[in-house]
Amino acid sequence: MPVQPRTTQGVLELLPSNQIAFQHMLETIRHGFERFGFLPVETPVFELVDVLLTKSGGETEKQVYFVQSTGAIEQGKKPELALRFDLTVPLARYVAEHEAKLNFPFRRYQIQRVYRGERAQKGRYREFYQCDIDVIGKDKLSIAYDSELPAVIYGIFTELAFGKFTICINNRKLLRGLMETFQIDQQTEVLHEVDRLRKAGREKVEGLVAAITGADKAKQLLDVLTQDWRAATGAFEATDNPTLREGIAELRRVYDGTRALGVPESFIQVDLSIVRGLDYYTGTVYETFLDDHPEYGSICSGGRYENLAGLYTKSKLPGVGISIGVTRLLSAMLENQGEVKRSVAQVIVLNFDAQLAAEYAALATELRAAGFNVEVYGEDDKPGKQFKFANASGIPIAIVMGSREREAGLVKLKDMRITDMSVNNETEVPRGEVVARLRALLETP
Amino acid sequence: MPVQPRTTQGVLELLPSNQIAFQHMLETIRHGFERFGFLPVETPVFELVDVLLTKSGGETEKQVYFVQSTGAIEQGKKPELALRFDLTVPLARYVAEHEAKLNFPFRRYQIQRVYRGERAQKGRYREFYQCDIDVIGKDKLSIAYDSELPAVIYGIFTELAFGKFTICINNRKLLRGLMETFQIDQQTEVLHEVDRLRKAGREKVEGLVAAITGADKAKQLLDVLTQDWRAATGAFEATDNPTLREGIAELRRVYDGTRALGVPESFIQVDLSIVRGLDYYTGTVYETFLDDHPEYGSICSGGRYENLAGLYTKSKLPGVGISIGVTRLLSAMLENQGEVKRSVAQVIVLNFDAQLAAEYAALATELRAAGFNVEVYGEDDKPGKQFKFANASGIPIAIVMGSREREAGLVKLKDMRITDMSVNNETEVPRGEVVARLRALLETP
Repeated sequence: MPVQPRTTQGVLELLPSNQIAFQHMLETIRHGFERFGFLPVETPVFELVDVLLTKSGGETEKQVYFVQSTGAIEQGKKPELALRFDLTVPLARYVAEHEAKLNFPFRRYQIQRVYRGERAQKGRYREFYQCDIDVIGKDKLSIAYDSELPAVIYGIFTELAFGKFTICINNRKLLRGLMETFQIDQQTEVLHEVDRLRKAGREKVEGLVAAITGADKAKQLLDVLTQDWRAATGAFEATDNPTLREGIAELRRVYDGTRALGVPESFIQVDLSIVRGLDYYTGTVYETFLDDHPEYGSICSGGRYENLAGLYTKSKLPGVGISIGVTRLLSAMLENQGEVKRSVAQVIVLNFDAQLAAEYAALATELRAAGFNVEVYGEDDKPGKQFKFANASGIPIAIVMGSREREAGLVKLKDMRITDMSVNNETEVPRGEVVARLRALLETP
Repeated sequence: MPVQPRTTQGVLELLPSNQIAFQHMLETIRHGFERFGFLPVETPVFELVDVLLTKSGGETEKQVYFVQSTGAIEQGKKPELALRFDLTVPLARYVAEHEAKLNFPFRRYQIQRVYRGERAQKGRYREFYQCDIDVIGKDKLSIAYDSELPAVIYGIFTELAFGKFTICINNRKLLRGLMETFQIDQQTEVLHEVDRLRKAGREKVEGLVAAITGADKAKQLLDVLTQDWRAATGAFEATDNPTLREGIAELRRVYDGTRALGVPESFIQVDLSIVRGLDYYTGTVYETFLDDHPEYGSICSGGRYENLAGLYTKSKLPGVGISIGVTRLLSAMLENQGEVKRSVAQVIVLNFDAQLAAEYAALATELRAAGFNVEVYGEDDKPGKQFKFANASGIPIAIVMGSREREAGLVKLKDMRITDMSVNNETEVPRGEVVARLRALLETP
């Protein structure tokens, strides 16, 4: 009795046509990162447990997948290795380990899968891709780099063509300074509520904040956070709170810097209610939303942090980073694209006459040399079965050359994209013109 | 006290410049696969244990890495998941699981890391890449596909430019038929010795075979296997052993088919001593050697098999596949390339005047739109430090625009590849001509 072929739940596996589309997405992201000079890094799928889990216990450790070889299990040893659960800890370890050999400011991108030992449920993945970029400075890192990340994201999302999107920026110093100015001491609790403003709305959030700070302070704070940002920051122009002053200056500089890098006004927006997590980020923070699909939440988030790798090195390594939620985008893509047939091959050379195998091989070789992706049908099947294969595979052009065409020095190009039976989808072209005619045919949509 | 940042031994991690080169290698391989219409597949890093380890015990199981979440370990459960140790078992599971949704003959490629829980030693990896292609038929698969794989490999290795290489082919039916003809019954033992012919030489191997079969049969067999293949097969033209006849016919057809696909005579060679493992392959077998580096052994191997997924499905799925030993090639690359500095960015815009930040941003944006990978130096550092960064990063061109150049409507292009101090490496060009001049400069080696 055969074993039932299956995978565990919540892992990432696609049929080829979806894999083609997903790969195209990852390539677009990669090229977008490289356009700004970010360097590729890949790290091993597992890290040593004592390196990975330096922070004591908590939610993260519960979700970790531990790795052990047969031998170690038999000896009853504790696991030495665990799968990475994000790309941030591996980055910190990598930069600390290779510090002497890297050039700072160090720009790196990393596109790899990460693992969380979660109970599987809809939309929860045990295995998913992360696409991260970070710029890491040594001792210092100019705010100029904070402006660059939205420009990278703008370039990529424009190319990905998921429709209109908005990159939201804010600054944690500004939030901290504001709360100091309003004498709000319970910063963590209040930020936790403010973070929900986009989803829950002002009324709800103001009530929750009021329960912590009292109604007056809550109103004061929410008045500022929901105001137009230029007016809001303008009102604090003369503040004597240094954190607030610095936050406002940084936010303006990041906004202006991003605009100078060609991001149009309608794609970048200051949103003073963006908090982005609770303790890691210390300055600029980012979130990105698809205008037509707010239900996906932020599909690209990040921010500025004080020190990347304090757990591994005494060097101070400030950084700024952003991460694209590519698995969420994949869901969006699969929901939107419907049944798109995609193929790697642009042309299939059909096998209408087994005697002509060498001719088919020569034709395919010529087309490959001209830059086309070409498949040759290898089985001696009936024409109907061959066309069915080409059609099911989504290959746009089929080439037919039987003995008749061969003698006449012709090949027949059949446009498989034309499904309307009343439209002629075949052209006979001289054998010597096949490259040019094929190119023209593939360029017509 | 910080934790020492480190990884376990035998894993795959590269510095950025090597990662760039490695990625280029993987991209070349990917495009080579796609040129022949192979479809991308990725599978999860772990499989269910009962699916992965269907074959009972043995060497493989000893090398498996098992995966468990914290919760499962606490409950003392047996591991449910294990990391893939090759790409063949996941392919079999994938094809059996998704059989109804795939189009056969199904061509897939897969480029992912695999894991072996081995004791780490030089040249032994616990984590390494595999790059596999296979064509899987349903019920049948034409021998035509066996000709295609060497053509794919020829295209890729020509582009990779590791120097001259030789793709060796043989046929297991031919070997089997020969041994039947010579009435050699101990096929497995004899093939095990024959497999060492390339390394150990005829004399040694003939002795070992003789110890199994007696001297006469050993001499007969080795006479054939070390002869020119055309003469050797010609001598059995009239054989009445059907396996031998079929093996000879297949080998000739694969050779001729590969030549018809444009593989030059000097790159493809029939070698009757190639065995390639002991039981999996049943027809064509492949091995590939770098002519100048025989010490790397076969860097690309594979063959034809009867049935891919008998453990998971009752469908008969014959296939033919080949795998590039990319981690071995990476070693070769790292040994050969010496200290190559490689960068993603082609241009760095230096920051000589903080007042001109918006100009630098506009210039970088213009260059990116023109297709260049551009980095902007963000820190207010002294020129010397900025040049040092550009140089250490291996970025070929630095652009300098201070207030003087700005006023004169010029930028200075500095070719960082010219290290001879007596050669002028700077050109001043009008701001409006920078794209064209940069392109010309980057095209000169």
